[in-house]
Amino acid sequence: MARIAVTDGMAQDAVVLLEKAGHEVVLGFIENDKLLAGALSDFDAIIVRSATKLPSDVLAKSGDRLKVIGRAGVGVDNIDIVAAAGAGIPVVNAPRASTQSVIELTMGHLLSSLRHIPRADRGMRQEKWQKKSMAGTELFGKNLGLIGFGRIAQGVASLAQLIGMEIHTYDPYLPAKVAKAQNTTLHKNVDTLFQTCTHISIHCNYNDETHHLVNAERIALMPGKSLDGIACGNHIVNCARGGIIDEEALLDALNSGKVATAALDVFEQEPVLPGNKLVQHPNFHGTPHIGAATLEAQARVGRDIAHAIMTVLDGKQAETTVNSHLLK
Amino acid sequence: MARIAVTDGMAQDAVVLLEKAGHEVVLGFIENDKLLAGALSDFDAIIVRSATKLPSDVLAKSGDRLKVIGRAGVGVDNIDIVAAAGAGIPVVNAPRASTQSVIELTMGHLLSSLRHIPRADRGMRQEKWQKKSMAGTELFGKNLGLIGFGRIAQGVASLAQLIGMEIHTYDPYLPAKVAKAQNTTLHKNVDTLFQTCTHISIHCNYNDETHHLVNAERIALMPGKSLDGIACGNHIVNCARGGIIDEEALLDALNSGKVATAALDVFEQEPVLPGNKLVQHPNFHGTPHIGAATLEAQARVGRDIAHAIMTVLDGKQAETTVNSHLLK
Repeated sequence: MARIAVTDGMAQDAVVLLEKAGHEVVLGFIENDKLLAGALSDFDAIIVRSATKLPSDVLAKSGDRLKVIGRAGVGVDNIDIVAAAGAGIPVVNAPRASTQSVIELTMGHLLSSLRHIPRADRGMRQEKWQKKSMAGTELFGKNLGLIGFGRIAQGVASLAQLIGMEIHTYDPYLPAKVAKAQNTTLHKNVDTLFQTCTHISIHCNYNDETHHLVNAERIALMPGKSLDGIACGNHIVNCARGGIIDEEALLDALNSGKVATAALDVFEQEPVLPGNKLVQHPNFHGTPHIGAATLEAQARVGRDIAHAIMTVLDGKQAETTVNSHLLK
Repeated sequence: MARIAVTDGMAQDAVVLLEKAGHEVVLGFIENDKLLAGALSDFDAIIVRSATKLPSDVLAKSGDRLKVIGRAGVGVDNIDIVAAAGAGIPVVNAPRASTQSVIELTMGHLLSSLRHIPRADRGMRQEKWQKKSMAGTELFGKNLGLIGFGRIAQGVASLAQLIGMEIHTYDPYLPAKVAKAQNTTLHKNVDTLFQTCTHISIHCNYNDETHHLVNAERIALMPGKSLDGIACGNHIVNCARGGIIDEEALLDALNSGKVATAALDVFEQEPVLPGNKLVQHPNFHGTPHIGAATLEAQARVGRDIAHAIMTVLDGKQAETTVNSHLLK
């Protein structure tokens, strides 16, 4: 049976699932120098999260044995899927497993940043009763702009609509009928989305096209006032991928007051380095990339990726192969 | 025209509304000793929030001029409405104005405590990357128990149902059909609600009957595990009134781990006194009674209470008179 490296951890149930099927599971992080020295040549499969990086030079040293790469999660920006395809290796992921968890974290950030929950909690721990300086605004009646309108954004849209928000979307890869079916206003140009929305939440992939998509020029377009005349300020949430927001521009906008609150789960550099000024801003709210960090999502991710890996090892194509179009 | 004391602040638009109608508005807090010395005998109306207390001894010194008391908000526990009725003074409030704001704060606390957003944000400010210790759980698939099922709880229920929660309710004053119409399970006994729900949110009034309704015995009944077997722990949110939760019992339960997170906007003693151990607990999340502290709610509260006050001053009965059943 197969030998499978699990380098960034996986839910215990999924390990058991693989072992019961007769596979050998080797748990433990493999340092980059060992990967470059050919550590993967001893494995039929590798399952990573985001910590392990698999660029082309690592893949070139993986040998002939490696048959499949599993990403226990969604984003594959840590894997060179083109180089993998070139070597005939399918890359499979678990795109649906964490959808609910990311929807809930996004709504949590959206609701708690508007009401300053983290800042208020800090004040209480400092034995202050900052009732007056914690006045917030409602989501009700505001325009929410969603950049990317896949499964997560659609879930966020449904909840935000029930709260009473008007939804605007930008997604050049989506058939217009999807946005229409959910009663959202689809923008052809991301600039008009920024002009229209006091609240922006990001739900797209990170790539060359989305690098610094949220920049100083676009932030400057945000209206700061809602349609009903409430001076709610501008608010930005990112639970998708770091690098989509220009963090320097965001910090400037927090300092100038152009952005009232920013809530980020993802960062240009992860882990965030000491001395980062953004995370110290009073109106910044941060979490350390925990969008999929729930018991439920990890159980689903493990189960989904174990099944996908075994499908490929059985010589079949897994439904969630992200580089199938590149494989010969 | 009338002379109106506004002692705990009010939205500027509402002050203008009263002044345009020809009334004199006197803004400023009146200390308790001055109230006892008869400061209210110079006014036709007084509008308070929660800081000004109007017990029977103060009302006894209000003189014959005072015709109406306005509570710019919902809860009237700071006003002796029986004594006011005895003196022939209607007490009016603004019960609908802050509904949306409290719904949103409740959802914010529910979602952010499950994902440790305030704790994660603290960690980031301490330059830690606590991804592993911040694993949370989803609301999806869990039982949410709502104590009290008025307007706010009904709004919370709709959102929680869309997230995928099953709603349990306890409200002895509500016709059973209201709970049924919204597909919730109505409990006749609050104990079975605690036995059934890993998540509890409080939406009732504070009175003798609800004093310490959430106590050590009831917390001990909470299951800690959801129906799908996820060890999500127990979670309690209170954006209603302090005193409904026995805070000593809650702190014990946080210390023992019986309660995984507690998120409170209201407290037995407000402002919270220095040295309070509850607010220092790592799994406590607090806000300083900001349920109605939004621009939108304060605008609505001001407008609603100004209209109610003017209705009474016109010799008519205001729709939102809370002691009409006691007035002769």
